[in-house]
Amino acid sequence: NREIRDIGELQNRIHPTYSETSRHDLLCLQWPSPPRNILLVRKEEAPDVNAALVEFANHIHATYPSLSLIFEPHVAKELCNAFDFPIFTTGHSQHAPKSALQDKVDLTSTLGGDGTILHASSLFAKVDRVPPILSFSMGTLGFLGEWKFNEHKRAFRELYMSGASAGYGSSLLQAEAQETESKMTKAPQPQNMSSAWGLGVPDKATSAALSETERATSMSPDRAMPSSRPTGWSSIRGKSMGQSRGSRVLLRNRLKVGLFAPDGSRIPSSVSETSSASSALAAGEQQSDVYAMNEVLLHRGRTPHLSIIDIFVGGRFLTEAVADGMIISTPTGSTAYSLSSGGSIVHPLVSSLLLTPICPRSLSFRPLVLPANTPITLRLSKKNRGREIEVSIDGVRRDQGLSVGMEVRVVGEDIKARNNEWIGGVPSVVRGANGGGGGEEGNDHWVGGLNGLLKFNYPFGEG
Amino acid sequence: NREIRDIGELQNRIHPTYSETSRHDLLCLQWPSPPRNILLVRKEEAPDVNAALVEFANHIHATYPSLSLIFEPHVAKELCNAFDFPIFTTGHSQHAPKSALQDKVDLTSTLGGDGTILHASSLFAKVDRVPPILSFSMGTLGFLGEWKFNEHKRAFRELYMSGASAGYGSSLLQAEAQETESKMTKAPQPQNMSSAWGLGVPDKATSAALSETERATSMSPDRAMPSSRPTGWSSIRGKSMGQSRGSRVLLRNRLKVGLFAPDGSRIPSSVSETSSASSALAAGEQQSDVYAMNEVLLHRGRTPHLSIIDIFVGGRFLTEAVADGMIISTPTGSTAYSLSSGGSIVHPLVSSLLLTPICPRSLSFRPLVLPANTPITLRLSKKNRGREIEVSIDGVRRDQGLSVGMEVRVVGEDIKARNNEWIGGVPSVVRGANGGGGGEEGNDHWVGGLNGLLKFNYPFGEG
Amino acid sequence: NREIRDIGELQNRIHPTYSETSRHDLLCLQWPSPPRNILLVRKEEAPDVNAALVEFANHIHATYPSLSLIFEPHVAKELCNAFDFPIFTTGHSQHAPKSALQDKVDLTSTLGGDGTILHASSLFAKVDRVPPILSFSMGTLGFLGEWKFNEHKRAFRELYMSGASAGYGSSLLQAEAQETESKMTKAPQPQNMSSAWGLGVPDKATSAALSETERATSMSPDRAMPSSRPTGWSSIRGKSMGQSRGSRVLLRNRLKVGLFAPDGSRIPSSVSETSSASSALAAGEQQSDVYAMNEVLLHRGRTPHLSIIDIFVGGRFLTEAVADGMIISTPTGSTAYSLSSGGSIVHPLVSSLLLTPICPRSLSFRPLVLPANTPITLRLSKKNRGREIEVSIDGVRRDQGLSVGMEVRVVGEDIKARNNEWIGGVPSVVRGANGGGGGEEGNDHWVGGLNGLLKFNYPFGEG
Amino acid sequence: NREIRDIGELQNRIHPTYSETSRHDLLCLQWPSPPRNILLVRKEEAPDVNAALVEFANHIHATYPSLSLIFEPHVAKELCNAFDFPIFTTGHSQHAPKSALQDKVDLTSTLGGDGTILHASSLFAKVDRVPPILSFSMGTLGFLGEWKFNEHKRAFRELYMSGASAGYGSSLLQAEAQETESKMTKAPQPQNMSSAWGLGVPDKATSAALSETERATSMSPDRAMPSSRPTGWSSIRGKSMGQSRGSRVLLRNRLKVGLFAPDGSRIPSSVSETSSASSALAAGEQQSDVYAMNEVLLHRGRTPHLSIIDIFVGGRFLTEAVADGMIISTPTGSTAYSLSSGGSIVHPLVSSLLLTPICPRSLSFRPLVLPANTPITLRLSKKNRGREIEVSIDGVRRDQGLSVGMEVRVVGEDIKARNNEWIGGVPSVVRGANGGGGGEEGNDHWVGGLNGLLKFNYPFGEG
Ligand SMILES: NC(=O)C1=CN([C@@H]2O[C@H](COP(=O)(O)OP(=O)(O)OC[C@H]3O[C@@H](n4cnc5c(N)ncnc54)[C@H](O)[C@@H]3O)[C@@H](O)[C@H]2O)C=CC1
Ligand SMILES: NC(=O)C1=CN([C@@H]2O[C@H](COP(=O)(O)OP(=O)(O)OC[C@H]3O[C@@H](n4cnc5c(N)ncnc54)[C@H](O)[C@@H]3O)[C@@H](O)[C@H]2O)C=CC1
Ligand SMILES: NC(=O)C1=CN([C@@H]2O[C@H](COP(=O)(O)OP(=O)(O)OC[C@H]3O[C@@H](n4cnc5c(N)ncnc54)[C@H](O)[C@@H]3O)[C@@H](O)[C@H]2O)C=CC1
Ligand SMILES: NC(=O)C1=CN([C@@H]2O[C@H](COP(=O)(O)OP(=O)(O)OC[C@H]3O[C@@H](n4cnc5c(N)ncnc54)[C@H](O)[C@@H]3O)[C@@H](O)[C@H]2O)C=CC1
Repeated sequence: NREIRDIGELQNRIHPTYSETSRHDLLCLQWPSPPRNILLVRKEEAPDVNAALVEFANHIHATYPSLSLIFEPHVAKELCNAFDFPIFTTGHSQHAPKSALQDKVDLTSTLGGDGTILHASSLFAKVDRVPPILSFSMGTLGFLGEWKFNEHKRAFRELYMSGASAGYGSSLLQAEAQETESKMTKAPQPQNMSSAWGLGVPDKATSAALSETERATSMSPDRAMPSSRPTGWSSIRGKSMGQSRGSRVLLRNRLKVGLFAPDGSRIPSSVSETSSASSALAAGEQQSDVYAMNEVLLHRGRTPHLSIIDIFVGGRFLTEAVADGMIISTPTGSTAYSLSSGGSIVHPLVSSLLLTPICPRSLSFRPLVLPANTPITLRLSKKNRGREIEVSIDGVRRDQGLSVGMEVRVVGEDIKARNNEWIGGVPSVVRGANGGGGGEEGNDHWVGGLNGLLKFNYPFGEG
Repeated sequence: NREIRDIGELQNRIHPTYSETSRHDLLCLQWPSPPRNILLVRKEEAPDVNAALVEFANHIHATYPSLSLIFEPHVAKELCNAFDFPIFTTGHSQHAPKSALQDKVDLTSTLGGDGTILHASSLFAKVDRVPPILSFSMGTLGFLGEWKFNEHKRAFRELYMSGASAGYGSSLLQAEAQETESKMTKAPQPQNMSSAWGLGVPDKATSAALSETERATSMSPDRAMPSSRPTGWSSIRGKSMGQSRGSRVLLRNRLKVGLFAPDGSRIPSSVSETSSASSALAAGEQQSDVYAMNEVLLHRGRTPHLSIIDIFVGGRFLTEAVADGMIISTPTGSTAYSLSSGGSIVHPLVSSLLLTPICPRSLSFRPLVLPANTPITLRLSKKNRGREIEVSIDGVRRDQGLSVGMEVRVVGEDIKARNNEWIGGVPSVVRGANGGGGGEEGNDHWVGGLNGLLKFNYPFGEG
Repeated sequence: NREIRDIGELQNRIHPTYSETSRHDLLCLQWPSPPRNILLVRKEEAPDVNAALVEFANHIHATYPSLSLIFEPHVAKELCNAFDFPIFTTGHSQHAPKSALQDKVDLTSTLGGDGTILHASSLFAKVDRVPPILSFSMGTLGFLGEWKFNEHKRAFRELYMSGASAGYGSSLLQAEAQETESKMTKAPQPQNMSSAWGLGVPDKATSAALSETERATSMSPDRAMPSSRPTGWSSIRGKSMGQSRGSRVLLRNRLKVGLFAPDGSRIPSSVSETSSASSALAAGEQQSDVYAMNEVLLHRGRTPHLSIIDIFVGGRFLTEAVADGMIISTPTGSTAYSLSSGGSIVHPLVSSLLLTPICPRSLSFRPLVLPANTPITLRLSKKNRGREIEVSIDGVRRDQGLSVGMEVRVVGEDIKARNNEWIGGVPSVVRGANGGGGGEEGNDHWVGGLNGLLKFNYPFGEG
Repeated sequence: NREIRDIGELQNRIHPTYSETSRHDLLCLQWPSPPRNILLVRKEEAPDVNAALVEFANHIHATYPSLSLIFEPHVAKELCNAFDFPIFTTGHSQHAPKSALQDKVDLTSTLGGDGTILHASSLFAKVDRVPPILSFSMGTLGFLGEWKFNEHKRAFRELYMSGASAGYGSSLLQAEAQETESKMTKAPQPQNMSSAWGLGVPDKATSAALSETERATSMSPDRAMPSSRPTGWSSIRGKSMGQSRGSRVLLRNRLKVGLFAPDGSRIPSSVSETSSASSALAAGEQQSDVYAMNEVLLHRGRTPHLSIIDIFVGGRFLTEAVADGMIISTPTGSTAYSLSSGGSIVHPLVSSLLLTPICPRSLSFRPLVLPANTPITLRLSKKNRGREIEVSIDGVRRDQGLSVGMEVRVVGEDIKARNNEWIGGVPSVVRGANGGGGGEEGNDHWVGGLNGLLKFNYPFGEG
């Protein structure tokens, strides 16, 4: 019915937990209760992606009727006619309470390539706890753990159900049985969320992991605002899509980036208009750091002359870089711009930052890999010939560049583990690690994909 | 008096503890009781080093009379005439109980360059707990945190006294006072080790950190075999060399390297005769892994043809490398061969392994940085043209190479923290982090040294 | 007397010849008659350079009174008060015939660095026969064969006198004697140019080398417009600065660069306003190719996205480059941007072009070295995400970029040898090859300078 | 009939000429008279190559009965039973005059890969005028211009007939017609070589190009020793394989390599036993330089320590290289070892040498491209730790290495053009440039093949 609603109407977000498993390095995602609000992000200017997006949205609506679908404003406007159910977006209603994506989105799903994932991540560039991202590629699979689009039904089901059954501890098997039972007795009357909560063994784990205020935020709305639609795991379970399993998640460490004036004062982080991140954020938040998933980049831009940048590592002066620019990258970004500039490929689980010069005038300036908790400062040198150089985050250029004396300060995001549960990073639902009791494959999605992506063993001179 | 004795006569080794400090990433070394046995390792074929070695040894003997000096057999033989006190070595006496360096050496000091440190480390290539290494450079300072030789008095005193005073917690200040007091009352009668033990606040920390069997090993000898000489911290303390401080230590992660036959059986790790490591070890131990401080290297050697090596990462096939060779390096080794081969520079505190190809025939094979706990296997491919390629560890070639089907299996050393104390790695006493209450400089020795060593900001075309 | 005059008043330019010598690869410069008009080019925004420039100009005026000094317009205006003799510039007088630098300048001298030489070369970017360039560096010596400023008296004298004596053929010795004689008889009456010409044995060589029209251009004005000042070699010869020698010249090959619209039509080559080249050129010439001394550069500029460029080599499609940009460089430019981007260092006498990608997304795209006469075309691909990418020549960005379908077509400048004399390239007077009969050092200025400039043998880890 | 004969029985070699064409950079091969002796070289240890070799040899014998087939001794022995006609080899008969390959072989054909071509070239490592090489690849095509084996009939016919007809000038068409005619009238009587000579328009060109002594050498035998078999172009022409065309040839520049003792005396160039080159050469020749097609390599070999090599360029000291080794490569070799070591790809028509370090300890030692006529000397430094390092030429290790003070002296082969005809280099019959009047494709085989071979546009992260 071509209806666009404001996300202010939606229930507040549910935070899944990420726990270690004995078998491998990836984490296991568990929903305390079924997710309800999904953000769909698409690649722009790609007609085939639009068709897939509509197909995917219709599938979700049909199979998981209790889920609400959220789109970015311009996408919602463009596609609303394609759906016979209401869709949601931000800033749509003047009447609705001002709500930001980070308060509502339970999980994000992207259709496109690496750039689309970066964009989805940028929508949460100010947020500590990013919703898990499930990404689909229309074409070839990239480095960021994309799934093939034709796997979308299975992939989404797996993520949706993750934690619903006892995937990893036999002690939960009983809770599982009980849950099934209790649902049976309660049917067919509309299931409300509090009943779902009542069953939740995972709930306890979550509670323990969250501070009291966090619990208040994430849980209260559910109790206060009962859903009127039949919803949740029970309705899905019946459908014979095989044993439900836990999704494997890679927490991708981000960079925390702040800009500072020569006098040491912080500069508000308005990013270029091409990013919709800022629009979604309240004014007050502008004063904080911004997170980057790939890298922060300083570059001479259109100035034809070399940039001169002073580099401080761990509070100490390292060197003066004379170069096209400097990259500070995450391990995730090590296969992006940093790789083109001669950086090494760093596994996403190596807790580190990369400092990679672009076309440095010194032949001996080699890429560095530093501990993730090392603070790095890049300051535009007084010797720099131009007035300003450019600053970009994850491929989006800031309107305001770095002028002489200004600094970019960077440190790796602090990923905390509390009682074996993890907070921080961009939780990426990883392909190919889908064996519930299985998981034998460990972090193979990366190793397995590497040769395919890089053609390491492609000798020159032979076909 | 030109006397060489066997280390079997010496008291057993004392294990220091390494604890985290709030201020920076380096660890703080604490001796539970004064060290007694020091191994001195020199660079070979360098006459000026010999002179320095004799000077250093004489200084130690004069200033720390309770310390016994250990040399490698050929050095002991060569230098014994230079001393008027007995020195110690291994395998010298048929009568003495067969003793290995790792049972006796409290600390190692090297005079030479990076290669000398590598050699010293190789003497403990089979040992989990390497004695701390204090290294002096005769010429330019390298990457491994060497001290200038003219700093040897201060540097050694600092290490010797480390933990004797309460360097880092005000709670220890009282114990310090008591210690001084009790020593005063006890003097001038010969101080025995057990009295030193009785004072030891550090003792408790140590005890807690060690398993019962470890305690038995490290502590019993002290109690059983009282030293007849006046010894220990008290005698040194009086000398006015300023406030004693705690030495800063970098635990350098090593690689655990094993060789396996095509049938999966382990191959004994006899290293080339140029290393004396094997000689110092009992036969039974030959079956275990060997530790590498820099890297393990596979190389075509004199075969003029490219090697073909199958690489498995985390148990999965990554690629077939067609190259001169492959390096698996520690972060410490990232500035050695790996750097020459195009690898990135990795900070020693980034827990990781580097997989760097040497002159690969594929243009796209880039160096990889993997989590330290990733098992890596290199197997000589059946496609390899030659019969065998060479295997070297830290610059020492094994007599036996890798033949077709044989494997090198590598994983990062497991550095364990128990109750804020650390075990494993090569404890390197780091220069420039010597401020007792100070230590403000953090891990600067690395950052500060980097530009000096690499001349990052040396632009071409300008002098 | 603070007077600025227009170069239209000056006599037309004299073309030296460049001939091979048996001993080495550099050419030997010979003036058919003494040079008269010298262009002085300085580095901008460098106060110490200004002082040196004034010192140098005053020295020339005092020592070589027949020489006229030409400056760029803004420099003439800024410095005219510093001189008590008239100086010349372009476009200064409405009355003077419209004259371009290339019609008047006999030789150019630069004070500054590599960038100043590039700028001087750009003033002749449309000209086949560039006047010889003698460059002085204020600071460190660069790759382009600069002389130290404190050598300026000797260096200039050498260049000025080059060919005046019989440096290389005994047959000229007599002419030399006659010349001296005839000058003596003629003195003290003002010497006119035609008398100088009459003596000129070199003249014949020149005539032979030049086409009739070229002769007309270069020689007629001299005859038509007798100089009123005493001038030429004779006045200098007396001064005891030692035996005059021939200057050694390296003809630096340039690139010929043309821009073409998608429909194949040529695009006028207006360069950015920062270059004064265009201003000096007549409108009609705009339609021709432009010469580059270092390189032509395509670059994404401020677009944060990768450029996509189709590359054609020798008329055939080579590949689609996905990269920050592409460099087509001369051997001279091989030590500039191309080197920072991973290109090899190519000796200026290797007749070749370099095709070097900047931060390519393909790991296997290696720099190529192609024959100088290979035509290369770079076309912005339809797949490129942005509308336009940037085009720069020798570090100067064109106002108009390359839009989709547009092409940059490049080929190496054709350096022709006629009867052992050479035409084309940027004749660079090279330092350190100053032995008249000597010249034993061959092209050493390059080899000798290389290690100094690149610190090839600067091992990492040692000071 | 399983018969092996000695090449001493064969007529002396015929030298083709190589002339420039207006259309492109490749040369055009012309036989003065039909070739008679073909050397077939195969890859070792490759059964499928053997089958192809037999097929190819039988085809040649059947189609070109006047051709004699030469094999290397061990191949002749192995394969003679496969043929029912006599084959030839070297050193087979004590009675035959001692003959070397270079006196007899008109053309060489290889079956295998790049290594096989290198081996074939090494058989003429002491010879100025290498016979043209036509190479076939069994698998993928390499960089050296191989043809697919299934093209062997057409490719061989083209080479055999090259120059027989007027391929490139209409003025020759008549000669062509006459030739056909005269053959018709002369048939069927056995054609002798002198009649072939009589027809030869190319003959005149050749005669002009050759000195009298050269003519004597190359032509006399033909006249003196008439072939008894029907032979030559006429018999082939009738067969309808289309218009005959001229083969395109790339003259691959080689390196001239000499070894010298510390006292400056030349060291005989016995190469390792794996090369049969030496065996074919008379003792006296051992004193001369050896030619390399790819590169000369110095390498630490099995010594685990870095080599220290002093480098002199153009007679001047450049630098001391501390590295695994040094490569001096031809442009042809730029896609071999040099490329793996970080060198640029240099087009075979760029007259140059590459100096590429292998794993240098200096970060700033970049590959150099020098003029082909620059003499380069590599001397093992006195500082080198080991006694000796290894010397290899084109992948074949010399038995004797380079000891301290010994030198390798290298200079590019001098390729001379006389009256538009070329002498020197390895004449490689190039694929894909087969259009007689055509030839539009220029040197495309290289450009066209490059992307296929290197996958330049293979972006990482996309399939
Ligand atoms: N020369 C280069 O290599 C440049 C790279 N970039 C990279 O592009 C990113 C922005 O992406 P888009 O907006 O799509 O720009 P884009 O359209 O220019 O494409 C960038 C390319 O990078 C790939 N990519 C992005 N993140 C990656 C990752 N983590 N690992 C491997 N490949 C990755 C994409 O698949 C795409 O092929 C930036 O974060 C930067 O890393 C941006 C400019 C130049
Ligand atoms: N790490 C490396 O890249 C090494 C390369 N080589 C090269 O191998 C050559 C000897 O060849 P083989 O006896 O077959 O040894 P090989 O069996 O080790 O194979 C060398 C590889 O190099 C290729 N190759 C040879 N010449 C080439 C050229 N000019 N351009 C492109 N590829 C080329 C061959 O196709 C083969 O793939 C040497 O001249 C040297 O250049 C030798 C040792 C190590
Ligand atoms: N990342 C890089 O390496 C970049 C290099 N450039 C180079 O700068 C040149 C323009 O020079 P400026 O206007 O002075 O710009 P600039 O002020 O940015 O300085 C360029 C640097 O390149 C050096 N240089 C210029 N030509 C050289 C040559 N042929 N060989 C060795 N060094 C050379 C100069 O000495 C100076 O250090 C361009 O032609 C381009 O080659 C320009 C931008 C970036
Ligand atoms: N092409 C190369 O770069 C080669 C390097 N090596 C390295 O040499 C090491 C053995 O050392 P030596 O016995 O002294 O052999 P060596 O006498 O060949 O010297 C090796 C050089 O590496 C330096 N080095 C050693 N470890 C280092 C580290 N961790 N960081 C920075 N520099 C370091 C030494 O200071 C010395 O300059 C091997 O572990 C290997 O890493 C060995 C062979 C070749």
